[in-house]
Amino acid sequence: MSNTFGEFFRITTWGESHGPGIGVVIDGIPPGLALDLARIDAELARRRPGGALASPRRESDAFEIQSGVLDGRTLGTPLALWIPNRDARPADYAPLASLYRPGHADFTYEARYGIRDPRGGGRASARETAARVAAGAIARQLLETEAPVEIVAWVAALAGDEAAVNPQAVTRAAVDASAVRCPDQAAGARFEARIAEARDAGDSIGGTIALVARGVPAGWGDPLFGKVTARLAHGCLSLPAAVAFEMGDGFAATRRTGSEQNDALISDAHGGIVPATNRAGGVQGGITNGAPLFFRVGFKAPSTIRKPQATVGRGGERVEFSGSGRHDPCVLPRAVPIVEAMAALVLVDCLVSRRAAPPARKG
Amino acid sequence: MSNTFGEFFRITTWGESHGPGIGVVIDGIPPGLALDLARIDAELARRRPGGALASPRRESDAFEIQSGVLDGRTLGTPLALWIPNRDARPADYAPLASLYRPGHADFTYEARYGIRDPRGGGRASARETAARVAAGAIARQLLETEAPVEIVAWVAALAGDEAAVNPQAVTRAAVDASAVRCPDQAAGARFEARIAEARDAGDSIGGTIALVARGVPAGWGDPLFGKVTARLAHGCLSLPAAVAFEMGDGFAATRRTGSEQNDALISDAHGGIVPATNRAGGVQGGITNGAPLFFRVGFKAPSTIRKPQATVGRGGERVEFSGSGRHDPCVLPRAVPIVEAMAALVLVDCLVSRRAAPPARKG
Amino acid sequence: MSNTFGEFFRITTWGESHGPGIGVVIDGIPPGLALDLARIDAELARRRPGGALASPRRESDAFEIQSGVLDGRTLGTPLALWIPNRDARPADYAPLASLYRPGHADFTYEARYGIRDPRGGGRASARETAARVAAGAIARQLLETEAPVEIVAWVAALAGDEAAVNPQAVTRAAVDASAVRCPDQAAGARFEARIAEARDAGDSIGGTIALVARGVPAGWGDPLFGKVTARLAHGCLSLPAAVAFEMGDGFAATRRTGSEQNDALISDAHGGIVPATNRAGGVQGGITNGAPLFFRVGFKAPSTIRKPQATVGRGGERVEFSGSGRHDPCVLPRAVPIVEAMAALVLVDCLVSRRAAPPARKG
Amino acid sequence: MSNTFGEFFRITTWGESHGPGIGVVIDGIPPGLALDLARIDAELARRRPGGALASPRRESDAFEIQSGVLDGRTLGTPLALWIPNRDARPADYAPLASLYRPGHADFTYEARYGIRDPRGGGRASARETAARVAAGAIARQLLETEAPVEIVAWVAALAGDEAAVNPQAVTRAAVDASAVRCPDQAAGARFEARIAEARDAGDSIGGTIALVARGVPAGWGDPLFGKVTARLAHGCLSLPAAVAFEMGDGFAATRRTGSEQNDALISDAHGGIVPATNRAGGVQGGITNGAPLFFRVGFKAPSTIRKPQATVGRGGERVEFSGSGRHDPCVLPRAVPIVEAMAALVLVDCLVSRRAAPPARKG
Repeated sequence: MSNTFGEFFRITTWGESHGPGIGVVIDGIPPGLALDLARIDAELARRRPGGALASPRRESDAFEIQSGVLDGRTLGTPLALWIPNRDARPADYAPLASLYRPGHADFTYEARYGIRDPRGGGRASARETAARVAAGAIARQLLETEAPVEIVAWVAALAGDEAAVNPQAVTRAAVDASAVRCPDQAAGARFEARIAEARDAGDSIGGTIALVARGVPAGWGDPLFGKVTARLAHGCLSLPAAVAFEMGDGFAATRRTGSEQNDALISDAHGGIVPATNRAGGVQGGITNGAPLFFRVGFKAPSTIRKPQATVGRGGERVEFSGSGRHDPCVLPRAVPIVEAMAALVLVDCLVSRRAAPPARKG
Repeated sequence: MSNTFGEFFRITTWGESHGPGIGVVIDGIPPGLALDLARIDAELARRRPGGALASPRRESDAFEIQSGVLDGRTLGTPLALWIPNRDARPADYAPLASLYRPGHADFTYEARYGIRDPRGGGRASARETAARVAAGAIARQLLETEAPVEIVAWVAALAGDEAAVNPQAVTRAAVDASAVRCPDQAAGARFEARIAEARDAGDSIGGTIALVARGVPAGWGDPLFGKVTARLAHGCLSLPAAVAFEMGDGFAATRRTGSEQNDALISDAHGGIVPATNRAGGVQGGITNGAPLFFRVGFKAPSTIRKPQATVGRGGERVEFSGSGRHDPCVLPRAVPIVEAMAALVLVDCLVSRRAAPPARKG
Repeated sequence: MSNTFGEFFRITTWGESHGPGIGVVIDGIPPGLALDLARIDAELARRRPGGALASPRRESDAFEIQSGVLDGRTLGTPLALWIPNRDARPADYAPLASLYRPGHADFTYEARYGIRDPRGGGRASARETAARVAAGAIARQLLETEAPVEIVAWVAALAGDEAAVNPQAVTRAAVDASAVRCPDQAAGARFEARIAEARDAGDSIGGTIALVARGVPAGWGDPLFGKVTARLAHGCLSLPAAVAFEMGDGFAATRRTGSEQNDALISDAHGGIVPATNRAGGVQGGITNGAPLFFRVGFKAPSTIRKPQATVGRGGERVEFSGSGRHDPCVLPRAVPIVEAMAALVLVDCLVSRRAAPPARKG
Repeated sequence: MSNTFGEFFRITTWGESHGPGIGVVIDGIPPGLALDLARIDAELARRRPGGALASPRRESDAFEIQSGVLDGRTLGTPLALWIPNRDARPADYAPLASLYRPGHADFTYEARYGIRDPRGGGRASARETAARVAAGAIARQLLETEAPVEIVAWVAALAGDEAAVNPQAVTRAAVDASAVRCPDQAAGARFEARIAEARDAGDSIGGTIALVARGVPAGWGDPLFGKVTARLAHGCLSLPAAVAFEMGDGFAATRRTGSEQNDALISDAHGGIVPATNRAGGVQGGITNGAPLFFRVGFKAPSTIRKPQATVGRGGERVEFSGSGRHDPCVLPRAVPIVEAMAALVLVDCLVSRRAAPPARKG
């Protein structure tokens, strides 16, 4: 269903932007996992709006675990987590009920449902991603019980300006040291200036997130519709404002010949087999090959801007709309932990699927 | 599961490249649809390798309907369709059992399963897409009972060379008039030459497919994980060699400001509401807005090339591999009907989902 | 997954008996349904322990709707409902952590998960059924928008003593007028006495619930694994203490010949076709035939009794166990609204499935 | 969906009774299983009509494996199996298109779909169970790689006459030594006579199948909707003519007190914990407790009989119907391998689910 992601490790989320809160229930979580709640807190804090560059909405994101955990360990029963909306201001949004904001889902939700929640976009709001980030933080902990998986995302481009970052070496610390989550300091400084400029102009900007997952063993993922590539794209393009996805070299790969693109396989120092290069981004046939997973997600600029825009009211009459709410001029820095969460959710689903039908012993 | 796609209109495929055949069963197909078998044939013919530019493997793709149809109409029971592999030559592939081809899923399938079918890639072969094309042809017929949906894909770029095509106007006839399925004749001529050059060099090339779906009403798709965008990306990136996906303007959109990117809504001549521009590719918040759906999928060059490549044998020993089989230097022309099939499958799933939970009457 | 029921109208529940509460999220709920919250309250009140005959645990069952509803109407987005556990007393259960109660899931949960929540059975407690009852109350409201479906269950037998009730005529009012929810007054009086006797003896008793659903149109349900019969049995036997299920005449039917058992079809006064008798309980081939649905569910006596019972501790040592908690000597009266909820959930899933793939127009 | 059973080890079946054949595809089958095809043959042979007591329709049931197996071992890819209908005679059924047979799904399929396949019941025919039996034979082989699971079913009652069989000791050999698959020889002789009598009278009879599964370890199954009990009931009541299900002592348990019904837990000779009795049929809280699984399924008499019956034509006109086809007067002997197959499919799904989320190590 539309509010569920994953097959074996399955999250279902609920909650509107300006309702009482956002929830997530995880079904299929293995028992016995010692939860580190501080890591959930930390990821939620990374997602939270804040700083001069971001939305002034204050989300404290204190969460409550409603089930599935006893004395800090998962029970195997569904783990539900509830994040109250402490700073919801539904009244701010009353004027929005009578018009369709450009670029937003107002018009399409109404076309789909005949009814919509005008309070801040309802389900279409990025507020929902808090639930994914919380679930993703749990997924990461589970991944680490199996393999030393290290997931690091960063802002790779903003408004067409590209940062120079080495996926092999980039660290989470370097990412978080930057106010815009760009570990290339020079680019980060440019990005900050660009965001401030957009904010001052009453406009917004988009960009690209890159993600690397190091330490994922070969043989994760499933063929066809279960490909890691397909699942990552599904998860990432289910995020608000996400418009593009590239695995490995992506579109650049489409411009190369087979002889230029193929990653040769070689023996490594430990007798294992690894690709000599990583143009494919860590997958072959949709299954991991032991090289770091690497992909990029493109996000358009936020639709809500202060600049006046032409649109229509519910009756089709022409109206002008200026966003006056507490809106980010750029979601990219906050998208970093969200994209990491989606990667963790996909990988843990692959892990559980693999446990369900493990490789044959060679005979 | 990994071999199933769709939720309400659900296909499950099976069959290895060089086994007895390829099958697909559709569950959730509404009863009473008058099937036009010639259209299934036609789509399979479009997918089939052929011509000087393509793989010399001859696939006749005669199919058998095994269930779910009586006197030409669907019964509502599962429709299964079987396409025998008439030109399978498993023996050709025996040498492949002892090595891992670069860029292929040989190594990763073995890492996933501990065992693999070395005959032409088994499930990882593009042969499986015949099943999707057949199911997609049925999906298109069902779509047309609801709305005048017209799905047209074409080769938009090859090896970095871009064609100039107008998505509003492009026709299937224009696409199929081109040997390389590029309706820009000048670009098509360049593409033909480029494919011939790659073939002669024992190499291969990749490129980009663009697709437009005109006539899709507003309000199809579901929020979040049920977004049209996410489902299309999932479907398309589950295809062999697919590495990138863009909805609407995709990465180009990430370089624009919100005021440049947002599609203003206007009233049309019939009192409806439509976007004045279509940078978003026909969706807002993952739900269709009545404008044509538009997306692009990037495919890397085929991994199998005649040029010798370095790789390893199953024991890790260094070996050289030259593809000698019946392989395409470029899959893009054949990918056109395959991507169309995935779009049709996603759209029909949206249609059925919408029927299951239809819009509220405005009250 | 194990905590999800239904396919098109899908509930997922969470929460342990003595954790903070019990929750349920409904995905696939159509938009625009005007919710009558008082009916949810009323069903929860019917399920609640109370009266001299029942468990002294006080469950107030005030619920909160967390999402999916605006101004009293469903939005089409997931409807989540949270019922705090106001009278949880986890400390009461501390001694249970070291032994396995006979007849309970203590031993088997530990065998399944390696870990368990000893506080009142955790997920295995009947407390979880509050979530189902709340969801079932919503399902009933949705059913009634389509057809005048009337679902009435009652206590049909207790400890082997059978009531005489006419399924065609029985009313909810007559059921609720009885403290033991048996509309046969004489039997009800015997049942009350029998429950009191069991309670005084420190023992417990089981029995049978019968349910009729009148007004269900012909043609609901799906073949094979989607049979109404199979789904009802699945739902009812997922309830705590449920051990048996009969559709229509059930085991009695197995003792008759075909000529005795078959329901003849006849034309009714309105030109419709109906079965002349209803031995099958309203289904043929698992699909409704327009006659009232009728089935029975058998519940064993509650496992917790005051009488001392032999069992083992976690180390396998022999111990004696006497239930001292707040336990019902008989769950049957409270099972009435729970079984009704399961029937409503199955029927609404059939309704939505039918909308997704509606009958062909006869051509 | 309606044609899919199981969650982790998932079968989807297709095919009408008198179409070209019956198929099944298994998704989620672990790689590396060495298939014993003779066992699939053997189970299909057990299901096949034959002997003086059964339908004269000859089903040879030669099957073809279409995918998922290489050199006798499963690949982890979907295993599809196709059983052609060699003795289909669609023309025999032409007269059935204009009327609704009593007790059959003719009327309800038409109410559900607006269209139906009149050839022998189409999907509603017991012919479909051949696919389940084949898949069940594979499931059994997989089960045995994990634990010495031994599944034995038999005809426990016929037309109200009950056999005396000890579930602890009954063997498959003893069952198959009986023409009516009743290991109680005296009862078997009575059953044979009773079937012959029904056949001669142009009538049919029903009865009960009992099943024991010995060797299932404790801790299989999942809570709530994943209960072994609920899944077994779902699977068994999705079979044609199945009308009732009892786990363990079933309805008899509802007549006992808690102190009479609870199975005490004791330490066994090997330091394990086992129930001292097995009234519950091997489950507590829906999860296996290490005692043999035991359940019963009631089947009504076949609806098709030679005796004339009153019914209606498609226009509602009164007609008389006499079955003249090749029909069994009693399906019970053939139901034995079918019920065994459903048990195997449920158990293997539990096994795979357990592998996906294995028990926590006690810490």
